[in-house]
Amino acid sequence: MSTTPLRPSGRQPDQPRDIRLTRDYTRHAEGSVLVEFGDTKVLCNASVEAGVPRWLRGKNQGWVTAEYGMLPRATHSRSGREATRGKQGGRTLEIQRLIGRSLRAAVDLKQLGEFTITVDCDVIQADGGTRTASITGGCVALVDAIRYLQREKKLKKDPFKQLVSSVSVGLFKGTPVVDLDYPEDSRADTDMNVVMTEQGGLIEVQGTAEAGAFSRAELNAMLDLAEGAGDTLFDHQREALGIRN
Amino acid sequence: MSTTPLRPSGRQPDQPRDIRLTRDYTRHAEGSVLVEFGDTKVLCNASVEAGVPRWLRGKNQGWVTAEYGMLPRATHSRSGREATRGKQGGRTLEIQRLIGRSLRAAVDLKQLGEFTITVDCDVIQADGGTRTASITGGCVALVDAIRYLQREKKLKKDPFKQLVSSVSVGLFKGTPVVDLDYPEDSRADTDMNVVMTEQGGLIEVQGTAEAGAFSRAELNAMLDLAEGAGDTLFDHQREALGIRN
Amino acid sequence: MSTTPLRPSGRQPDQPRDIRLTRDYTRHAEGSVLVEFGDTKVLCNASVEAGVPRWLRGKNQGWVTAEYGMLPRATHSRSGREATRGKQGGRTLEIQRLIGRSLRAAVDLKQLGEFTITVDCDVIQADGGTRTASITGGCVALVDAIRYLQREKKLKKDPFKQLVSSVSVGLFKGTPVVDLDYPEDSRADTDMNVVMTEQGGLIEVQGTAEAGAFSRAELNAMLDLAEGAGDTLFDHQREALGIRN
Amino acid sequence: MSTTPLRPSGRQPDQPRDIRLTRDYTRHAEGSVLVEFGDTKVLCNASVEAGVPRWLRGKNQGWVTAEYGMLPRATHSRSGREATRGKQGGRTLEIQRLIGRSLRAAVDLKQLGEFTITVDCDVIQADGGTRTASITGGCVALVDAIRYLQREKKLKKDPFKQLVSSVSVGLFKGTPVVDLDYPEDSRADTDMNVVMTEQGGLIEVQGTAEAGAFSRAELNAMLDLAEGAGDTLFDHQREALGIRN
Amino acid sequence: MSTTPLRPSGRQPDQPRDIRLTRDYTRHAEGSVLVEFGDTKVLCNASVEAGVPRWLRGKNQGWVTAEYGMLPRATHSRSGREATRGKQGGRTLEIQRLIGRSLRAAVDLKQLGEFTITVDCDVIQADGGTRTASITGGCVALVDAIRYLQREKKLKKDPFKQLVSSVSVGLFKGTPVVDLDYPEDSRADTDMNVVMTEQGGLIEVQGTAEAGAFSRAELNAMLDLAEGAGDTLFDHQREALGIRN
Amino acid sequence: MSTTPLRPSGRQPDQPRDIRLTRDYTRHAEGSVLVEFGDTKVLCNASVEAGVPRWLRGKNQGWVTAEYGMLPRATHSRSGREATRGKQGGRTLEIQRLIGRSLRAAVDLKQLGEFTITVDCDVIQADGGTRTASITGGCVALVDAIRYLQREKKLKKDPFKQLVSSVSVGLFKGTPVVDLDYPEDSRADTDMNVVMTEQGGLIEVQGTAEAGAFSRAELNAMLDLAEGAGDTLFDHQREALGIRN
Repeated sequence: MSTTPLRPSGRQPDQPRDIRLTRDYTRHAEGSVLVEFGDTKVLCNASVEAGVPRWLRGKNQGWVTAEYGMLPRATHSRSGREATRGKQGGRTLEIQRLIGRSLRAAVDLKQLGEFTITVDCDVIQADGGTRTASITGGCVALVDAIRYLQREKKLKKDPFKQLVSSVSVGLFKGTPVVDLDYPEDSRADTDMNVVMTEQGGLIEVQGTAEAGAFSRAELNAMLDLAEGAGDTLFDHQREALGIRN
Repeated sequence: MSTTPLRPSGRQPDQPRDIRLTRDYTRHAEGSVLVEFGDTKVLCNASVEAGVPRWLRGKNQGWVTAEYGMLPRATHSRSGREATRGKQGGRTLEIQRLIGRSLRAAVDLKQLGEFTITVDCDVIQADGGTRTASITGGCVALVDAIRYLQREKKLKKDPFKQLVSSVSVGLFKGTPVVDLDYPEDSRADTDMNVVMTEQGGLIEVQGTAEAGAFSRAELNAMLDLAEGAGDTLFDHQREALGIRN
Repeated sequence: MSTTPLRPSGRQPDQPRDIRLTRDYTRHAEGSVLVEFGDTKVLCNASVEAGVPRWLRGKNQGWVTAEYGMLPRATHSRSGREATRGKQGGRTLEIQRLIGRSLRAAVDLKQLGEFTITVDCDVIQADGGTRTASITGGCVALVDAIRYLQREKKLKKDPFKQLVSSVSVGLFKGTPVVDLDYPEDSRADTDMNVVMTEQGGLIEVQGTAEAGAFSRAELNAMLDLAEGAGDTLFDHQREALGIRN
Repeated sequence: MSTTPLRPSGRQPDQPRDIRLTRDYTRHAEGSVLVEFGDTKVLCNASVEAGVPRWLRGKNQGWVTAEYGMLPRATHSRSGREATRGKQGGRTLEIQRLIGRSLRAAVDLKQLGEFTITVDCDVIQADGGTRTASITGGCVALVDAIRYLQREKKLKKDPFKQLVSSVSVGLFKGTPVVDLDYPEDSRADTDMNVVMTEQGGLIEVQGTAEAGAFSRAELNAMLDLAEGAGDTLFDHQREALGIRN
Repeated sequence: MSTTPLRPSGRQPDQPRDIRLTRDYTRHAEGSVLVEFGDTKVLCNASVEAGVPRWLRGKNQGWVTAEYGMLPRATHSRSGREATRGKQGGRTLEIQRLIGRSLRAAVDLKQLGEFTITVDCDVIQADGGTRTASITGGCVALVDAIRYLQREKKLKKDPFKQLVSSVSVGLFKGTPVVDLDYPEDSRADTDMNVVMTEQGGLIEVQGTAEAGAFSRAELNAMLDLAEGAGDTLFDHQREALGIRN
Repeated sequence: MSTTPLRPSGRQPDQPRDIRLTRDYTRHAEGSVLVEFGDTKVLCNASVEAGVPRWLRGKNQGWVTAEYGMLPRATHSRSGREATRGKQGGRTLEIQRLIGRSLRAAVDLKQLGEFTITVDCDVIQADGGTRTASITGGCVALVDAIRYLQREKKLKKDPFKQLVSSVSVGLFKGTPVVDLDYPEDSRADTDMNVVMTEQGGLIEVQGTAEAGAFSRAELNAMLDLAEGAGDTLFDHQREALGIRN
C-alpha cells in the first residue's frame, strides 16, 4: 500500500483538476468565458464579425477560427511577447490551428450565414493543458456568440451541432493519467491531447512520445481516461450554458 | 439648475471612477496587480530578471521597462492581434515608452543592482484611460517586485523612491473633467495624461487638442483636477501596499 | 554678475537658435522646405496624392499625414538604417504621429477634397529639436502643397486654417530655457515640446521629467518661453510664405 | 463483387504506394536521400554542423532538427514562395516540428556529441503524404549523416537507436485506407499520420476528423493498417541502408 | 608544353561543362525543366496564371517574371533557409531580377494576352553558374509554358520571339575561361555573366572585377568565349525543344 | 544639318551633365559629400567605426560597405518609405551591393586595420544616374574618412589605392550617349553602368537591353563614351580632394 501518491498534486490517475467556466467575463465580446483547469486560466472571447475570409466569399457559409496567445508572464519565467518579436512562434500557430479545427466541429458552417466567429484564447496563467482548456472554454464562448446572433435574428436556422471538449492524457512514470498539470506535463513520457464530441466521437487525437515510444495498449488506456474526463467536461459545459442533458 | 448631467456616466467633473487594485492576481509574477478604473481592467505583471540590457552592462545599475498590449477583444470591436500582424503599432509603442519612463521615476536605478524589472501591462477590458491605469497599477506591481528582491536578500539598499500615479483629464463639451471613460474620451476636445509623484511633482504632461486648441487657463484647470485625483490614487496605492501615509 | 554663460551655446534662456526656412528646396514635391534650427536641418517634402486612406473613403474629406526619418549619419555616431532593420523604431513612430496630429490642426480637412497630403520630414543633420523643426517647416511645406492644389483649381474653398509652429523648452541646470540644442537636450532635467497656433492656442504639450519632477510653476515658466519663441517662429513662417501679419 | 475500385488509384485499402529511397542524391550533404511515395517526391538532406543551439550548450549532448519546405510549383497550382512572403506558414512550422520530433526518436542525443544534424525536407513534387515521406526518407539521410561522423572518427559511441518511419492512414468513403494520395487526402473524412519504430512502438499519432468524428473502432482499424505498412517501410529503409533484418 | 592543366577540371579555356536539359521533370508545372551545367542542377518550373500584376492591368499584355531560390544544402556548407530568416537576401533578389529581365527578352508580351508566366528556378545542387543555368533552362520551360497556352487555344498569335541563353566567363589566373565552376568562380579575378540571343545580340553583360580591374581587351576576349559557348547552348535548347535550326 | 537636338537636354552625345562635389556637407560624418550630376543630388556620408563584421574578425583587415536609400519624394511621384514597408526592395539591395563592391576597389583592405567604413548614399533628388553619382561621390567621402583615420594616427600605412568613378551610358534613339538623365533613361533601348579606375581599368560593366538587344559594336561605342566621361569625373574628384594629377 503506497503512502506516496503518484501524482505531484495527489490526484488519482483518472481525476481531472477542478474545472470552472465563468461566462460574461468581459463585457464587449459576444461570448466571453474564463475557463479554469486548476491553476490554468484562459480567457476565451468569441467575436462575431459580418463577412467571411476571401476564399469563402459567395459560398453561402460562415467561418469559425481561433487565435491563441499567452501573456508574457503567464508562465514560471517570462517569455518574450510575440508582438515584440514580430511573429507568432510555431507552437502558437500549431495550437491555434488545433483550436480552430476543433471548434468548427461544433458548428454547421452552412447554417451560420456569412459571419465569421473568431475565438481568441488568451492564457492569463499557465499550469499545463492550456490548449485543452482553450477548446473546452472556447466552445462555450462560441455557443454564446451563436446565441447572440440568434437574439439579433441574424440566423435562419441553428448552426450549433454539438458540444466539443478536450483534455490531455499521458503516461507519467509509466502510469496513464488524465489532465496533466505542468509538473506532470514537463516530465511525462507521453503526452496526448484528445478532442471529443458529446456523442463519444473523436475529433482530434494527438499523441507524442517524449521519451521512448508508447504501445497500442497504452494508447487505449489513455483514451479510456480521456473518455471518462469528457463526461465531466460536458457536464460543466452544459451546466454553464443551462443545457439540460 | 441642470437636470441632465454633463458626463454620460453621471459623474461630477472632478470625480474619478471607482478604482480597484488587486495584488497577487496571478501566481508566477514577482508582482501581479489587476488595476480597475471603472470598466477599464489592466493586468500588470512585474517580472524580475537577472542582468541588464547590453547598453547598461557594467554600469552597476538596474533597469525598469514596460510592455503594453491589448487583448484583441478588450475593445468594442475586435482589433487584430499585433503578434499576427507581425509588429506592434505606433500607439502601442508610444504607450509602453510612456509607462516605462513613468515607472523609472519611482526607482533609484543605482540601488537596484544588475536586475531588470519588466512590467507587462495587458488590457483585459478597455473603457478609456488604459495607459493611466497601467501606470497606476504597474507602480504597485513594481513595488511588489522590489519587495521580492528584498525578501530574497538580493538588494543592499532600498531602490524605491516614491509612488507614481497617473490620470487623464480633458475638456468635454468645454468643461474640464477628470478620468475620462471611453464615451467621453472619444468625443473630448482635448485629452491630457498626467503622471504625478506623491510629493506633487509632475513626471509627464501630455496634452493633445483633438479639435481647436486649448488655452493656458484650460491647461491649468485640467492640472488642478489631475492633482485632486492624484490624492485619491495615491491613497489607493498606499492602502493596497499597506503603506501608512 | 556671471561671466560664464549658462547655456553651452552662449544663448540667453529665452533666445531660440537662428531659424531658416528655404522653400522649393527640391523640385519634385508640391511643397519642399528645408528648415534649419541652428545646426538641425530637416527636409520637409509635402506630396499631394489623389484619394484618401480606406477608412476615410466616401466621407467627402481629405487627409494630412506625416512620416519622419533620420539619415543614418545625421547624428554624432551612425545609427542603423530603419529600412535595413526592417521596421521603424518606437521613437520614430511617436514623432511622426505627433507631426501628423500637429499639421492637421492647420487644415480644415472637410475643405481639402479627397486628397491626401503626406509631409515627409527627413533629418539631414541633427542637433536637438528635430521634431519641433519638422512641425515648423512641415507647416510651410503643407501650405505650399495647398497652394499647388489651388493653382491647379482642384479645391473649391481654402482649407488652410492657421499656421502651426513648435519649439522645445526645458529645465537646464534648473533654469527654464527655450529651443534646446543637443548638448542641452542630453543633459536637461525636463524636456517639453510645445505646438502652438498663431492665435496663442496650444495644440500639443508634451513635457517629460528626465530627472526628478517638475513643478506647476516651472511648467508655467517654460510655457511662457515657448509663447515668446512662437512669435518669432510665426514671423519666419509668414515671411517665408509672403503672408502679411 | 465490386467492379469499381474504392480508391481512385485502384489500390487495395491496405496497399501503400510504390516506395523508393535513393541515397546520395546530391553530393554536398552528409546524408542526401530522395524519397518517393508514388508521385510524392521529397529531397531529404542531412547536414552536420559542429555545435549545438544556445540552450543546449555545455550539456554534453547533440541535437537533431528538421526544416520543411515546398517548391512553389510542387503542387497543382503555384503557391507563393515562403521566402517572398517573409515567413513560414503555420502548416510548414507544424510539419517541421513533427519531423524534428520524430527523427529525434531515432537517436540517442547523449551519444551524438556536440553536433547538430539538420534534416532539410524539400518537396519537389507533392501528391499527398509529404510529411510521412519526409520522416521516412529523412531517417535514412540521418543515418547517413551519423555514419559520416563515424567515418570521420568524431563519435565515441553509436548514437543510432532505431529506425523511424511514418505513413498516413484515413477513412475514405467510410473505409480505412493506408498511404493516402492527394485525390484521397483531399476528400477523406479522417486523416491520421502515424510515426512508428521498428519495435512496433508509436512515436506520434495525429488523427483529425475532417467531417463528423471517428470512433475508437475506426481508430484501431487505421492503426492496424499503419502497422502493416510500417513493415514495408522498414524493409525499404533497411534495404537502402544495407542493414540486415 | 604544359603538363598541368590551367583549369581545376582539366577543361580547355573555351570548353563549357556538359549541358543537360530534361523536360517534363515534374508533372504539375506547365513547363518543367531540369538544367544541368556539370554538377550545377537547377529545377526550372514555369507556371501559367490568368491575370497580370496590378500595374499592368488593362494594358492588354502579359507578364513574365522569375523567382530564384537555393535549397539550404545545395552548397558545400548549409546556408540558412530564406523562409526561416524571413526575407530573401540581396543576392537572391539580384539574381531573380536578372533572370526575369532576361526571359522577358524571349517573349513579345503584347502577344501573350493577360497571362503571367512565373519561372521558379530552384537550385538543387550548386557548383557555380546557377544564374546562367537558370536563364538557359528557364527559357526552355518558358517555351513549354507558351506551348501549353497554345494547345489550350488561349493565344491568338505566337508570343515567342527568340531563344535566350546565358553563360559565365571570367579571368582565371589571368586567362579568359568560359562557364566557371565553383573552384574557378571562387578564385577568379573577374567574373562576367553574359545573356545572349540566337541572333548574336547581347541582352545583359554583367562583369565584376573581384581583384584589380580588367581591360577592354580582356573584356573582348571574354565576350568572344561567351559567343562561342552560346552556339553550344542554343543547340542544346533547340534539340531539347525539337526545333530545327 | 539637324536643328532638333537628339537629347532632351540639348547635350552632345559625349557630354556629361554638370558635376559638382561639395565636401563637408554635413558635420558629423568623417566624410560627407554632396554629389550632383545635374539635377541628381546624392548625399554620401562615410562613417568610421571600430571593428569589422563577424566573418572578418581576426583576419587583420578592414571593411568598406555601402547603404543606399532614396528619400520618398526624391522622385516625380512619391514612393513608399522602405522603413515603413519593412524591407529594402530588390533594386535598393542591388544598388548598394554595387556601390560597396565598387568602393572596395579604391582601398587596400589589408592596410585599413580593423575598421569598417560605411558609406551611406541617400538620394535627395533623383533625375537618373543615382547609382553612378553615388559611387563617384562616395569615393570622395571614403577618401575623407581615410584621411580622418590618418589624422587620428589610427593607420600605419595608407590604404588608399586609387580613385574610382562611375557613369552611365546607353543607346538613346539608336545613338550612344553618356550620363543619361531621367527622360533619356526611361526611354533608352540599352542602359549600361560603368565603374572605372584612374588607370583606365574596368571595375564593373553592367549593360542591360531594355528593348531588343545590343551588338558588340554598340557595346564598344558605349565604353568609349564612358572612358571619355571618366576623365572628367576623375578631374572633379581630384580637384575636390586637392590631389594634383
